[in-house]
Amino acid sequence: MKDVAARAGVGLKTVSRVVNGEPGVTPDTVQRVQSAIEALGFRRNDSARVLRKGRTASVGLVLEDLADPFYSSLSRAVEEVARDHGSLLFTGSSAEDPEREQELALAFCARRVDGLVIVPASQDHRYLQPEIAAGIAAVFVDRPAEQLEADAVLTDNAGGVREGVTHLIRQGHRRIAFIGDQRRIHTAGERLRGYRETMADAGLPVDESWVSMGPTAAERVQAEVTRMLQGPEPVTAVFAGNNRVSVTALRVLVNQPRPVALVGFDDFELADLLSPAVTVVAQDPARLGRTAAQLLFRRLEGETGPPQRLELSGRLIVRGSGEVAG
Amino acid sequence: MKDVAARAGVGLKTVSRVVNGEPGVTPDTVQRVQSAIEALGFRRNDSARVLRKGRTASVGLVLEDLADPFYSSLSRAVEEVARDHGSLLFTGSSAEDPEREQELALAFCARRVDGLVIVPASQDHRYLQPEIAAGIAAVFVDRPAEQLEADAVLTDNAGGVREGVTHLIRQGHRRIAFIGDQRRIHTAGERLRGYRETMADAGLPVDESWVSMGPTAAERVQAEVTRMLQGPEPVTAVFAGNNRVSVTALRVLVNQPRPVALVGFDDFELADLLSPAVTVVAQDPARLGRTAAQLLFRRLEGETGPPQRLELSGRLIVRGSGEVAG
Repeated sequence: MKDVAARAGVGLKTVSRVVNGEPGVTPDTVQRVQSAIEALGFRRNDSARVLRKGRTASVGLVLEDLADPFYSSLSRAVEEVARDHGSLLFTGSSAEDPEREQELALAFCARRVDGLVIVPASQDHRYLQPEIAAGIAAVFVDRPAEQLEADAVLTDNAGGVREGVTHLIRQGHRRIAFIGDQRRIHTAGERLRGYRETMADAGLPVDESWVSMGPTAAERVQAEVTRMLQGPEPVTAVFAGNNRVSVTALRVLVNQPRPVALVGFDDFELADLLSPAVTVVAQDPARLGRTAAQLLFRRLEGETGPPQRLELSGRLIVRGSGEVAG
Repeated sequence: MKDVAARAGVGLKTVSRVVNGEPGVTPDTVQRVQSAIEALGFRRNDSARVLRKGRTASVGLVLEDLADPFYSSLSRAVEEVARDHGSLLFTGSSAEDPEREQELALAFCARRVDGLVIVPASQDHRYLQPEIAAGIAAVFVDRPAEQLEADAVLTDNAGGVREGVTHLIRQGHRRIAFIGDQRRIHTAGERLRGYRETMADAGLPVDESWVSMGPTAAERVQAEVTRMLQGPEPVTAVFAGNNRVSVTALRVLVNQPRPVALVGFDDFELADLLSPAVTVVAQDPARLGRTAAQLLFRRLEGETGPPQRLELSGRLIVRGSGEVAG
């Protein structure tokens, strides 16, 4: 700690404050102390780990919704990597509640996990700074950390939507709906951006009544899809912002007198057995989870260097529902 | 502890041994000490809880497979009840590995959860005796504890299968396949029993080539369904022992020249949108999880009395695939 203090040009007390997450230190000083810690490879965790030798190693996963198949696949992949490293995985879900995310992440830390994989719901991850300074490794997945520099493994959301919307435009569609999750969710915002940019690049105006962002509860999505299919100029195609939206949209579309095209973000089980089978932009949740967990264990094994941001591509899978002519 | 020792007719050291899970105590004495603890309402947890006031309350859930939608719904229901009680939920999955189950359950206990909900993979839960004696509450769900008297919330598996198989017999089927999970899994054994009893009661012989029990990996199920549809006397109906089997069986059945009836145990998302829509015996995983968690919190709030065994009924949902004539 002396070396850290000397390198950061601060007193021992300040280093201790930063490491223990106490208040009264300017962000700039926190940054200096953390850089010094990083540079010197001082991780309090190392000694802590020796102290609790014989205790089962563990990592914590905070995700959004246990019951969403996207996150179940991601979880299982993280768990498999943890198991390969002789570590147990504890999982908890935030249900998109920022406070709940923080409570879970800190509860995992209090129970001495070695590291965290987080699908964030919060807009401010500075609460993790003391934990990270104290040696906890943290990797964000699906969505990046906010107000904190940290490792993140993401899908190229805007790029994936671009592929899907371009596909619909090629089938002759001009009035294309975009139904997404709550705007404050990073992935939802990025997907909406992909939609708007693609429409603009194709010279197609977007009527704001075609765009609906909000909770993906079935009632809301059902009402929105139904609304967009009414009136003199209904949409002829729907881009669904995630698998929850796709599944609900499908239930409305099968009851329409004329076919409406559908492309969904995220693949889902049985999408290929429906009629028409559902065209999707597939993410690879297992690969997201695996990549994040592998990065976490590399960090735990001592890999240093600046935070990494890895981006995986989506993949258009053509099956039928997206090839209905506009 | 003196009262416990007096009531159980043993020394203080013996009580301490039982509470701390140390060896050298006969099962009979363990039982006596536990009954005394129960009778006196002595739960070490109470004082432990006071000691760690201000610390977030938590419960642990050990389930079989995070990525199976049946368990995701169950998890979410447990989580909602935990949240209503101001408690965090930690989840881990055993992947049907008894050692992994034990490791997870004990790791949760070591991290001071207040209680456990367990979907067991193990055949012997005596390892939990010291924890329970020390005040941890444990409720088993989906499958009962083995070699341990404990609370359990189950589905009436044999009864549910009876309803489904009777339905197939009524459509005229005589050669009905049963494809289930590994025989050592309680639910798989119970469902097989339901099948055999129903066939016997209807006076229908069962050719052993129609019965296949084993891992529900897609390759195995696919090969088994394919095999049963070949030869001079193929099966005309398939009873699928769980949702993983149904989904794979479906993929084989859609490619058959003549229709084969299918009834599955467990409902699954989009079953109603397939063609034909899939007839199932639906369990209610959310209700299983909710009931188990509510029982757990009643125990944590001090409800005593002998272990309870609650059994929920399955429900036949007729949709089309089970009404193909035999």
